[in-house]
Amino acid sequence: MTGAPHLTAGQVTELVGGELIGRADVELVGAATLETAGPGELSFLASPRYVAHFHRSNAGAVLMTPGFREVMPGPATRILVADPYSAMGRVLRAWQRPAATWGVDPTARIERGARWTGRVSLGRHALIEREARLGSDCVIGPGAMVGEGAMLGDDCRVEAGAQVLAGAVLGHRVVVRAGARVGGEGFGFGVERGAPSRTPHVGTLVIEDDVEIGTNATVDRGTLGETRIGRGTKIDAQVHVAHNVRIGERCLIMAQVGIAGSTVVEDDVILAGQAGLADHLRVGKGARVAAQSGVIGDIPAGATVSGYPARPHRDVLRQAAALRRLTPLVSDLERRAGPK
Amino acid sequence: MTGAPHLTAGQVTELVGGELIGRADVELVGAATLETAGPGELSFLASPRYVAHFHRSNAGAVLMTPGFREVMPGPATRILVADPYSAMGRVLRAWQRPAATWGVDPTARIERGARWTGRVSLGRHALIEREARLGSDCVIGPGAMVGEGAMLGDDCRVEAGAQVLAGAVLGHRVVVRAGARVGGEGFGFGVERGAPSRTPHVGTLVIEDDVEIGTNATVDRGTLGETRIGRGTKIDAQVHVAHNVRIGERCLIMAQVGIAGSTVVEDDVILAGQAGLADHLRVGKGARVAAQSGVIGDIPAGATVSGYPARPHRDVLRQAAALRRLTPLVSDLERRAGPK
Amino acid sequence: MTGAPHLTAGQVTELVGGELIGRADVELVGAATLETAGPGELSFLASPRYVAHFHRSNAGAVLMTPGFREVMPGPATRILVADPYSAMGRVLRAWQRPAATWGVDPTARIERGARWTGRVSLGRHALIEREARLGSDCVIGPGAMVGEGAMLGDDCRVEAGAQVLAGAVLGHRVVVRAGARVGGEGFGFGVERGAPSRTPHVGTLVIEDDVEIGTNATVDRGTLGETRIGRGTKIDAQVHVAHNVRIGERCLIMAQVGIAGSTVVEDDVILAGQAGLADHLRVGKGARVAAQSGVIGDIPAGATVSGYPARPHRDVLRQAAALRRLTPLVSDLERRAGPK
Repeated sequence: MTGAPHLTAGQVTELVGGELIGRADVELVGAATLETAGPGELSFLASPRYVAHFHRSNAGAVLMTPGFREVMPGPATRILVADPYSAMGRVLRAWQRPAATWGVDPTARIERGARWTGRVSLGRHALIEREARLGSDCVIGPGAMVGEGAMLGDDCRVEAGAQVLAGAVLGHRVVVRAGARVGGEGFGFGVERGAPSRTPHVGTLVIEDDVEIGTNATVDRGTLGETRIGRGTKIDAQVHVAHNVRIGERCLIMAQVGIAGSTVVEDDVILAGQAGLADHLRVGKGARVAAQSGVIGDIPAGATVSGYPARPHRDVLRQAAALRRLTPLVSDLERRAGPK
Repeated sequence: MTGAPHLTAGQVTELVGGELIGRADVELVGAATLETAGPGELSFLASPRYVAHFHRSNAGAVLMTPGFREVMPGPATRILVADPYSAMGRVLRAWQRPAATWGVDPTARIERGARWTGRVSLGRHALIEREARLGSDCVIGPGAMVGEGAMLGDDCRVEAGAQVLAGAVLGHRVVVRAGARVGGEGFGFGVERGAPSRTPHVGTLVIEDDVEIGTNATVDRGTLGETRIGRGTKIDAQVHVAHNVRIGERCLIMAQVGIAGSTVVEDDVILAGQAGLADHLRVGKGARVAAQSGVIGDIPAGATVSGYPARPHRDVLRQAAALRRLTPLVSDLERRAGPK
Repeated sequence: MTGAPHLTAGQVTELVGGELIGRADVELVGAATLETAGPGELSFLASPRYVAHFHRSNAGAVLMTPGFREVMPGPATRILVADPYSAMGRVLRAWQRPAATWGVDPTARIERGARWTGRVSLGRHALIEREARLGSDCVIGPGAMVGEGAMLGDDCRVEAGAQVLAGAVLGHRVVVRAGARVGGEGFGFGVERGAPSRTPHVGTLVIEDDVEIGTNATVDRGTLGETRIGRGTKIDAQVHVAHNVRIGERCLIMAQVGIAGSTVVEDDVILAGQAGLADHLRVGKGARVAAQSGVIGDIPAGATVSGYPARPHRDVLRQAAALRRLTPLVSDLERRAGPK
């Protein structure tokens, strides 16, 4: 990680509340797997399967569970801790640089009536349009834009080249990743006198606290009324959310998923990669939709569905098994059916 | 909509040619559904199903059909009009602000030989490359780019961060939404001596009048010859149109559709979300391709297809029904078939 | 192609090592098919099917195989050459303008510690972040960005609005097309205490020599460890490559493909449009994955798979044939099965 602050093995041990075996002064500047780590890097051992990797590893220090205490020491310093994986997460967060230099880059533009609370970071050529309001500690990356009248809460991050378009309302700690566009006009066409005719989109977009919108994703505002994404929901790269969609809290929506207009996704739903939801549906709380599924009807709460059209995953598996057994039978059947 | 001009209920009534029941001086600054509208907002009632919502609504005024004249008045002013939905569209269009401030932002760059007719709006850090030509009333958003030698007709809009790349030719009233890239080099690789080798793409891209290209969509120019999108066709977010594709007039192409090289889509075709068309195909006039369909052969005019490989939707439904009936039969069949 | 240098028919003949029949001084400024070419354009004739087009063509000159020597001359000058298509490629490459004007645009920003070797082209509002290093002859387009500590080899091209994010390492001759974002943080969420919780992504992204990343594509860096794309691999528009994916050499990955975290794609694999690969899989060397396939298990080297879940394409075809034969049989079966 470029420019990450150094941590010694001793400091790491203290940070994770572990027990150090070896040298406390080893300098660590990054993290890697046992196989690839070098002497300045921290690694971890959480499964007996990787003990051989540990013995061959060049890592400067290794996080491991106390159960590995007796493992023959390799060259590495060891840090014993109950949950090495979660401990690694804590170290990684400590390594992360401050997100930004606070202040306004001289090339950034702030239009009339735009304002913020406390400190702000506006990158190169960032643009804050008229009457936009930012909470404290927002970071607007290079080339990023906050549209006219948009509102951001505290600690929001709009990454390089991303856009929060006019009138969108974001809660606290919302992340809009590079190239994502949120709050634009959606695809509202009817056919009038034989040609497509646009419905103006004058609704809004509301993104609640702790939501993340992935790289190059697109989220349209409502036509009338709003599009809304609930607290804590995470949206991956290249997802498309159409106008008037309502997504609940704590959902995980993976790369390249598409959700058509006015569909409702309740809390705690998982939509796996490339799944598609037709318009005006409801996906019930806690449902799981498998990758590439095509959902064209309501999905009950708690269901796991797959395929096109998406059905209960158990039925899909059963049908697939029947199909595999079927092929050799069809010829036999045709023979029995006799001449047509 | 932020900063929209106020309209009174009286002005709205005049605009839509309706009949006012109630106060003409109610100030309206936006629109919303009956359930969510506040006292400064216009709503509409078009179906008896929502009469209860009307009675509870806080809307400042409600557009409704004359058939609801006798509905017990709620607190709202009523505007009777034959088609409330279309009337709402007219009001929304009236509310829409002028698209832009005319003029050239001091941070915009205009390269040698670039020129336009009449007025233009060039946003923050917009870039007009050498020899590009714009018609009158074009709006080039912040960070947007018109490439070298590209030509735009009148009233075109290239939104924030969108790019019309070198040599593309756009008709009148074309909209290129935020982050869309049109006219770039496509994916023209053959395999030469065991490794991918690029075919230069020196063809062009032609986008006819009244076309809309969605947010973060990509349209490649031709290798030799052109890519062309016909008059009035609307393309949604994250669609990909490859080199040398020809799309007819008045098509609707929904989010995340992909069309591979040299395929022809005739007039009035609808491609639903996430559908994919293989290369060198022809989709006949007026055909409809269901969401997520995988088209790998020609589709006749007027056909409705679905599934992978895409087949007539009626056959797909019939086959799905047969499959559902099949599962219980297979075990029975295997029993009858006897030992292998 | 706008502003392409003129070539005479004589110069083209010399360039391709052909034989000229006709006028050596015809000026050629572009290329087109026989049907659409004008008097200043070069075309080609490679199949007897198009002889009639040749006779009607207005092309200024036509590349053709020696076998067409006896074809009655049209108005066009002819250039005989063994492989007209490959000859056309050579001419097109000659026509291509130098990619850029060398030098640093006054609006480009170069942060502290950023540096390059030899010449560079930095476009309007391009941004080179702290400690980024570029090889010689790199072209960074308008509004494009090279992140903190990123390293580019020689002859790389980062097109308009594209971003190479912090710490990514690119080899020589890498092309990152318009709007592509490489090296960003991926979608690493686990569920902790009932809510999604982010794993920091502090790994790296390595893109080897001669790789191309398509328009608006996204490639995430590793969480721990790296994401890597092998030498000569070509990635099309709107592809998504998740964290810790490893792609081999000379792969072709077509538009809108998605590859989930930690999956391994070996050398010489072809992934057709909209295919999806689940996480933690291995696709063997030389495998071919058909368009829209959903891969949810390992694919052996050399296999050709299709469908969802992806299986050997031959089995898919066989099963589809069985299904088509099945529908009329099911009713018959049900009749034979008798009352339930």
